[in-house]
Amino acid sequence: MLPTTKFASLPSFATQLDGGVSSPRGFLAAGVASGVKKRGKLDLGMVLSEVPSVSAVTFTGNAAAAAPVRLTRETADCAHLRAVVVNAGNANACTGKQGLADAARMRLLAANHLLLPVEQVAVASTGLIGVPLPMDKIEAGIGAAAGALGAGIAPAAAAADFAAAIRTTDKHAKSGALGVRLPEGVVRLGFAAKGCGMISPRMATMLCFVTCDAVVTAEAWAELMHAAVAASFNRITVDGQESTNDMVLGFCNGASGVVPGDESLAHLGEALRAAMLSLAVSIVADGEGSTRTMRLTVTGARDGGEAEGVARAVANSPLVKTAFYGRDPNWGRIMQAIGQALGRDGHHVLPARIAYEDLVMVEHGQPAALDEVQQGRLDEVMRQPEIDLTVALNGPGAEATVYFSDLTHAYVTLNAEYST
Amino acid sequence: MLPTTKFASLPSFATQLDGGVSSPRGFLAAGVASGVKKRGKLDLGMVLSEVPSVSAVTFTGNAAAAAPVRLTRETADCAHLRAVVVNAGNANACTGKQGLADAARMRLLAANHLLLPVEQVAVASTGLIGVPLPMDKIEAGIGAAAGALGAGIAPAAAAADFAAAIRTTDKHAKSGALGVRLPEGVVRLGFAAKGCGMISPRMATMLCFVTCDAVVTAEAWAELMHAAVAASFNRITVDGQESTNDMVLGFCNGASGVVPGDESLAHLGEALRAAMLSLAVSIVADGEGSTRTMRLTVTGARDGGEAEGVARAVANSPLVKTAFYGRDPNWGRIMQAIGQALGRDGHHVLPARIAYEDLVMVEHGQPAALDEVQQGRLDEVMRQPEIDLTVALNGPGAEATVYFSDLTHAYVTLNAEYST
Repeated sequence: MLPTTKFASLPSFATQLDGGVSSPRGFLAAGVASGVKKRGKLDLGMVLSEVPSVSAVTFTGNAAAAAPVRLTRETADCAHLRAVVVNAGNANACTGKQGLADAARMRLLAANHLLLPVEQVAVASTGLIGVPLPMDKIEAGIGAAAGALGAGIAPAAAAADFAAAIRTTDKHAKSGALGVRLPEGVVRLGFAAKGCGMISPRMATMLCFVTCDAVVTAEAWAELMHAAVAASFNRITVDGQESTNDMVLGFCNGASGVVPGDESLAHLGEALRAAMLSLAVSIVADGEGSTRTMRLTVTGARDGGEAEGVARAVANSPLVKTAFYGRDPNWGRIMQAIGQALGRDGHHVLPARIAYEDLVMVEHGQPAALDEVQQGRLDEVMRQPEIDLTVALNGPGAEATVYFSDLTHAYVTLNAEYST
Repeated sequence: MLPTTKFASLPSFATQLDGGVSSPRGFLAAGVASGVKKRGKLDLGMVLSEVPSVSAVTFTGNAAAAAPVRLTRETADCAHLRAVVVNAGNANACTGKQGLADAARMRLLAANHLLLPVEQVAVASTGLIGVPLPMDKIEAGIGAAAGALGAGIAPAAAAADFAAAIRTTDKHAKSGALGVRLPEGVVRLGFAAKGCGMISPRMATMLCFVTCDAVVTAEAWAELMHAAVAASFNRITVDGQESTNDMVLGFCNGASGVVPGDESLAHLGEALRAAMLSLAVSIVADGEGSTRTMRLTVTGARDGGEAEGVARAVANSPLVKTAFYGRDPNWGRIMQAIGQALGRDGHHVLPARIAYEDLVMVEHGQPAALDEVQQGRLDEVMRQPEIDLTVALNGPGAEATVYFSDLTHAYVTLNAEYST
């Protein structure tokens, strides 16, 4: 099932289904243990569309992008992918020419097993940075996964194996499927994601794989995917760090035979966005040491860039994040971060209005007085696992929203206290 | 005495003197207890040049600048200031029109006591955000401080009182004085600074006050001050947060009668820069929960902005900062932060060379093998209180340096665990 959050609700025409990436028609999935992870944990996964498919991919913007990202981005036919092979436990990042050769070898082996041209196979990795892939294990794993794809494993079990195989340190699996009722018929969406656990040394990455069986053009699918990514995975921050391996990949293979009209496409996009937002928020909630998740909406900025800059400055401020950990409604730190983001010439865009849920804390840049009842309500709000924050600036009206976690002792422990 | 750090050494022609801001000729200082801070702690300070003086001020760029910053920036004659009145314990920030009126009243009272035009008096505040100044206490404090200025207190004691009065939560006082031997004669520099303690709720600010008795034009003094600020206070980060109250203010009153020539001006600038760098580094070392200080030098960028962006991305990465806390030589996180700052089109500026002190950890973007001796040396380096880091990018050669602290459990405790 998809994770639940008050920040994302499914549209009425979408229903959760058992299963995951292999729930849409014409998709197979598998997850196997290649031996890269210890103790027989699943660590190598594959998704295959049995029929031709369109696809859309969003990659990390990090200049130190990992070998699988560079290979897929630069040499695959990213609008017509049919399969992805993913390993966990080793990021194949900062591994130089050998890393690129290893990623290419992963792709070639998968393509050969699946009888696909290499251009139709994506490669993703997640795990340790700076360590060469153990190719003997990976090669055997790819063979095993390809074999499992055709072995008649129940779709829900296969999807669960795949979702488990791409996990590194996520506390909860992030997988699910939707049935979307359109006037033209029912189409299905499948999802698997993993968060940015950096618990082990040099471990990074957020990955999301989406499958869909509607009949949609490559252009329309890319539009739906990019809009959904922009409203979900591009709006979250745990610690402001963009990894070397991030990838969101969606396949859409038309196997349902259902051809959505324009209005239905918009509905499909709405379901896609809601599901991806629930996965994105669950990545924040499952972030390192996180105890609560905040949604921050900034309005009244002079332009979208300013709104975004203010939202990210607040969301990434360690002072704001530690205050929410301490359940301290410390709006002074929010004001400081807003002011820093605006810079001196943004002075007239202040004073701001700051609200925590329905409680106005600051009006015209100055503290609002809370009565006893409101003070009690504020104490409750600060204990919520999900808190809605709004910052209304004094400008024409551009808006931005981000979702962020608090900064806790556990974050420091996870990232500092281990043996190397 | 000025704080000691391996990152800053005094030039051979400069000698530490007992005392602080009142060591240069023609300056008086005082610090009194106004009652804003509890338990009779000193919390209101004043510096006065007994003769006309030139001055230079650097203010925070935060749009939510506090009332004293706005008042001084917008209405004082910042090149000809003769006095500053500073209170600690209340930042007079986010206090609206009342805050501006209070700052103006502080200035007027100080000016009247000191028989100066208001345009020659600067005001600074540090402490709680969003709380109106208790003006009755402040007014009495200003009277007491003005009285203390003429009371014949020994200069070194008066300077210590002033340095104590501007502290909030700094563990160590940051004060000192230098004698600078120039061919034209000896001139003196005096210093008092406070760091960015945000231990109490809504508490912020870094302040530095400098005095000098050389005969220097306003333009030359501004140049010396700005160059020294650029190389010191503008190069440090504890948590990337710029406060609402930051101010660096330098007076130069010519009372020594020594007129430095061009070469001597350069020498004076060198002493000023070294002293301010030692104060700036001590602010990092005294940063919230900090256990060690890193100097990061980035070379080989395409331009200064890129070098600066990369340096700040690494210095403000919570993953990098927690790794240094955990004594983990985790260069993967440095590479990730570099890549994020460069963005996708910066790919060819990588691969980078990363060194910790004399140990090359990464060469051409790939891990360098360390032998057993080097591994032992690395363990030692990671235990140092001050660590030198270098990142050499592959571009034409622009450089930037920043000084940063680690991110520790104590930081989270200080900023999360208090009652509001």
